[in-house]
Amino acid sequence: MVVIGVDPGSVRTGYGVVRRDGDSFSLVTCGVIRLSSRLGIPERIKMIYDGLEERIGASDPAVLALETAYVNRNAQSALKLGQVRGAIVALAMNRGLVLREYAPREVKYVLTGRGGARKEQVAYMVRHFLDIRHTLKPHDITDALGIALCDMLSGGEGSAPRRARVAGKARGATSWADFVKENPELLV
Amino acid sequence: MVVIGVDPGSVRTGYGVVRRDGDSFSLVTCGVIRLSSRLGIPERIKMIYDGLEERIGASDPAVLALETAYVNRNAQSALKLGQVRGAIVALAMNRGLVLREYAPREVKYVLTGRGGARKEQVAYMVRHFLDIRHTLKPHDITDALGIALCDMLSGGEGSAPRRARVAGKARGATSWADFVKENPELLV
Repeated sequence: MVVIGVDPGSVRTGYGVVRRDGDSFSLVTCGVIRLSSRLGIPERIKMIYDGLEERIGASDPAVLALETAYVNRNAQSALKLGQVRGAIVALAMNRGLVLREYAPREVKYVLTGRGGARKEQVAYMVRHFLDIRHTLKPHDITDALGIALCDMLSGGEGSAPRRARVAGKARGATSWADFVKENPELLV
Repeated sequence: MVVIGVDPGSVRTGYGVVRRDGDSFSLVTCGVIRLSSRLGIPERIKMIYDGLEERIGASDPAVLALETAYVNRNAQSALKLGQVRGAIVALAMNRGLVLREYAPREVKYVLTGRGGARKEQVAYMVRHFLDIRHTLKPHDITDALGIALCDMLSGGEGSAPRRARVAGKARGATSWADFVKENPELLV
């Protein structure tokens, strides 16, 4: 069972692919699609769509998990974020993935037991579950992995233990050492 | 030269496909994708994407023309509209169409010579250019056709006469009589 979590944004879109085997979770891949703010929204949408499609093709998730949109009072940024989200939703639909959405409080609650947890606590639990030994930067990556873990832990697919065994050794998963070697720019 | 104009909305998305041969314009097809407000946004996005993709497949436009989004003060509706627009932009990119956007004032100006023209005047000019002898309902269809005509008239593809000859007889175009027979529900 593989889930891709996505933290959408018009400047940075984070993604994290997580595999679950029984009670154990492992990191398949993660990263961020960076978009110059000088590009128009259509060009950015193309880059996000194509970028995520490539990762989906490589890791074959069954589910795409998104955070429900946080809507602030600025209609212009809501429109921008909406367009990025719409393209990601279309991608999930086009690839036949199950789409599931989680409120930020839900992600925090499922990962830490507290809906009001701080970002650092969530990041700590993401690293714990996935046996990641560094801080990932930017935070969009940790957020995306948190969303993917939330989907698995909250039982999108049947009951799951709240505190699953840390693994990192599941079939097909990148070993942490290899991942670090290939993606040094992701580490703080 | 074929252009599809789209008037995006989370409840009704109008579309209109127009063909141009030299100075003459003709209606290829038009209609509206209606979405129940009881459906979630992902389901609606899928219906819009698949619906427009089918029409694009059948009429093979080179350009998808959209009105630039009107952003009001409600961030929640901006987010909703943004998601629909994002899916349409992704579709245009995935199909390799040129995407062009026009402000509402631009569409009005190009069609009627006045940026502040009333909706009825724009609708009149759309019917005039395309030799349409009835009022189309809902107005989303006329709006979509207006956007497509705006793209052709404003010279997305080279210079165009401001007042082109009305045709409705171009190769491959539906005759108005046939179109009426097949789409009685579109007429007032």
